[in-house]
Amino acid sequence: MASSISGFSKLSKAEKIKWITQNHFDQPQEASTLLATYCHPDAARQEKHDEFIENTLSNFYLPLGVAPNFLINNKQYTLPMVIEESSVVAAAGKSAKYWANKGGFHTQILGTEKVGQVHFICPEDPKKVTDFFEHIKPKLLEGCAPMLERMEKRGGGLLSLQLIDKTAAMADYYQLHATFDTRDAMGANFINSVLERLAEILRQVANEYAKFSHIDKPIEVVMSILSNYVPNCIARAKVSCPINQLEEEEGLSATAFAKKMVQAVQIAQVEPYRAVTHNKGIMNGVDAVVLATGNDFRAIEAAVHAYAAKDGQYRSLSTAFIDGDQFVFQLDLPLALGTVGGLTQLHPLVQWNLELLGYPSAEELMQIIAVAGLAQNFAAVRSLVTSGIQKGHMKMHLLNILNQLGAKGTEKEAAIAYFKTHKVSHAAVQDFLAKA
Amino acid sequence: MASSISGFSKLSKAEKIKWITQNHFDQPQEASTLLATYCHPDAARQEKHDEFIENTLSNFYLPLGVAPNFLINNKQYTLPMVIEESSVVAAAGKSAKYWANKGGFHTQILGTEKVGQVHFICPEDPKKVTDFFEHIKPKLLEGCAPMLERMEKRGGGLLSLQLIDKTAAMADYYQLHATFDTRDAMGANFINSVLERLAEILRQVANEYAKFSHIDKPIEVVMSILSNYVPNCIARAKVSCPINQLEEEEGLSATAFAKKMVQAVQIAQVEPYRAVTHNKGIMNGVDAVVLATGNDFRAIEAAVHAYAAKDGQYRSLSTAFIDGDQFVFQLDLPLALGTVGGLTQLHPLVQWNLELLGYPSAEELMQIIAVAGLAQNFAAVRSLVTSGIQKGHMKMHLLNILNQLGAKGTEKEAAIAYFKTHKVSHAAVQDFLAKA
Repeated sequence: MASSISGFSKLSKAEKIKWITQNHFDQPQEASTLLATYCHPDAARQEKHDEFIENTLSNFYLPLGVAPNFLINNKQYTLPMVIEESSVVAAAGKSAKYWANKGGFHTQILGTEKVGQVHFICPEDPKKVTDFFEHIKPKLLEGCAPMLERMEKRGGGLLSLQLIDKTAAMADYYQLHATFDTRDAMGANFINSVLERLAEILRQVANEYAKFSHIDKPIEVVMSILSNYVPNCIARAKVSCPINQLEEEEGLSATAFAKKMVQAVQIAQVEPYRAVTHNKGIMNGVDAVVLATGNDFRAIEAAVHAYAAKDGQYRSLSTAFIDGDQFVFQLDLPLALGTVGGLTQLHPLVQWNLELLGYPSAEELMQIIAVAGLAQNFAAVRSLVTSGIQKGHMKMHLLNILNQLGAKGTEKEAAIAYFKTHKVSHAAVQDFLAKA
Repeated sequence: MASSISGFSKLSKAEKIKWITQNHFDQPQEASTLLATYCHPDAARQEKHDEFIENTLSNFYLPLGVAPNFLINNKQYTLPMVIEESSVVAAAGKSAKYWANKGGFHTQILGTEKVGQVHFICPEDPKKVTDFFEHIKPKLLEGCAPMLERMEKRGGGLLSLQLIDKTAAMADYYQLHATFDTRDAMGANFINSVLERLAEILRQVANEYAKFSHIDKPIEVVMSILSNYVPNCIARAKVSCPINQLEEEEGLSATAFAKKMVQAVQIAQVEPYRAVTHNKGIMNGVDAVVLATGNDFRAIEAAVHAYAAKDGQYRSLSTAFIDGDQFVFQLDLPLALGTVGGLTQLHPLVQWNLELLGYPSAEELMQIIAVAGLAQNFAAVRSLVTSGIQKGHMKMHLLNILNQLGAKGTEKEAAIAYFKTHKVSHAAVQDFLAKA
């Protein structure tokens, strides 16, 4: 059984690897060598990658792929996509091509507001708390003003500051609810620092506030923290065309195809089991670009799925409908993104990916990523209502199956040729190789 | 402006890189060289990484870190974590250590059921559809039996098959709702293949069913697809100890700390803005191990956040409470994971990470990952209710700020020493370096 260790984080990288491999691996030397082969050849560059987080032993590879031919608001883009799942990049490319000759993707920003809260407990009469907030509000704004200067110069800042009475949900519970514009920064450090300052002032002034009956600590701050929920930081992506411009699909006329697409999206609106997977498909495209551009996919995922449940039932994020003779497919996504700060400056491949996109602003990146989600969703639903998901997916997965089964060069080529006209499954590939 | 391209996916990797760099980069040669430095030195191994997805140009590095000292059900683990966010691995390590001398983490599996659906439209009387389902059910089971054999040998298979009438939500809409056990496989390909077979039989038999009044296509299958929503595939992780064993924290007694932890989690239960970020913190730990073990984090994210909204309001996934003299902190997570198939066999570092964990079964991995989530949540809430999130976070982020500002070896060392006792902020580090 593996043992525990004290002071691990203080060891050098080599010492960490030694302890880990000797305590957890049958072949410590091999295990250690494998890690080394995944390190960058330039030691200084590797050191920077190591310093992103704590206890780094090596680099985990995720494939960096690209999907060209995205026409967004009449501009051509090639999307960088970091994703381990086969068929996602291919699906993006197919949707890009499908819509390029039908006007492409159109997008808009519906808001860029971010949110932070100071959560506190105050066992006073609600009226007194409201009065106290009116009393303290100028002091709060004044107290955090120096921290806002740099952000204000960039066109952002603190947009609003409200007291919210949450005592109906929990005894004596109130919030300072603040909204921010953080421009091209994701803004987490900025928002959290401002909130902690607001909390400090709140505590101090409350202690000196004569009208509170609880002289000792009338206000207890539970925590001060940004919210990743950003229902007013939204990008909308849309495709549309006359129904008769849609392509015929495997026995479906353009009209039948449009109808079936609308039906499939409607099912994802009304049925949560389907909605979860429908939205997961959207996130395949979203996260691939989020990762490629050095953003935090956990933050995006949390916001997006909570948004999908905002009316009390978990639903599809996209909508599809027929408007006169037009087929319309559309997606609104809450996306709090940054194109400056954090990893965007530090990771050489993030820089590479941002250059590939033409160094977008955060607002432009929001729109690109909403398109990546819509494109993925269109491709998935299109497959589902026509040939089924497995045909395309297993075709893309063929190389992985061949590699799993240890197929060599000529065997691979023969298999790829054969499965152009045969149904791919793990068993079918196994049979093919056994007979080859 | 960049141009579009036809047949991109058919180009060789070198040709793809050439087109991309010449069309999107100011310095095509440099851009191309950078990609090359991120490739694995072993060309055959690189080729396998390339073949995971389509249009792969290079490998995107995410740091692979480790968090030792996790005592789970009295067994020691070191968790592999793939994550770009500073402080996540450090937080995991801190929580592991905190609980190791208080009995460690305890886990259990509450279910392993997965779900798939055939969504179809049938404009017949609901009673007729129910009769038809009774008629066809044996044929459906018989028809997919050969596909189940291998899975049944491993102890899994098709658990149930139901007809669900969804006509109240959408006209003429029904589902075949199937549940599965896929043992150590995530099971997406297996489930989707079975569902497509069920759909095929459904269509065929419906066409021959005399009691349907619509002779031509009485049933239209809209789509057949697994659901990533798995509310009956749950791992529970838990820590608990007598309150007086909790450590005193920055002016808080053990009792006051316990009370504040409970309050903070209760806030995340009642306030969606807080719940989203609370759960995002859980997912920092979850996704880091999900990625490290070759699983699909989009699937996990979608299931988890939909589960958080299951009662109609988006809430905290964890609960904290005081039970007699015990402090209890607990988390239930829906986790559909695999430890065989897919990337688990193909990615050498996934294999390495699975060996680090002692080659867990899918059920064991579910429990480990639930612990990673709980540990991260405990660390985050603990910081929030004591020193605030920024203190620890900015300390961890110090190296990134120094690298952003281009600090060199001795400057870095001096800064690290100085900021042990000073508050870290971007501006403070900038000032320090300017004066150094």
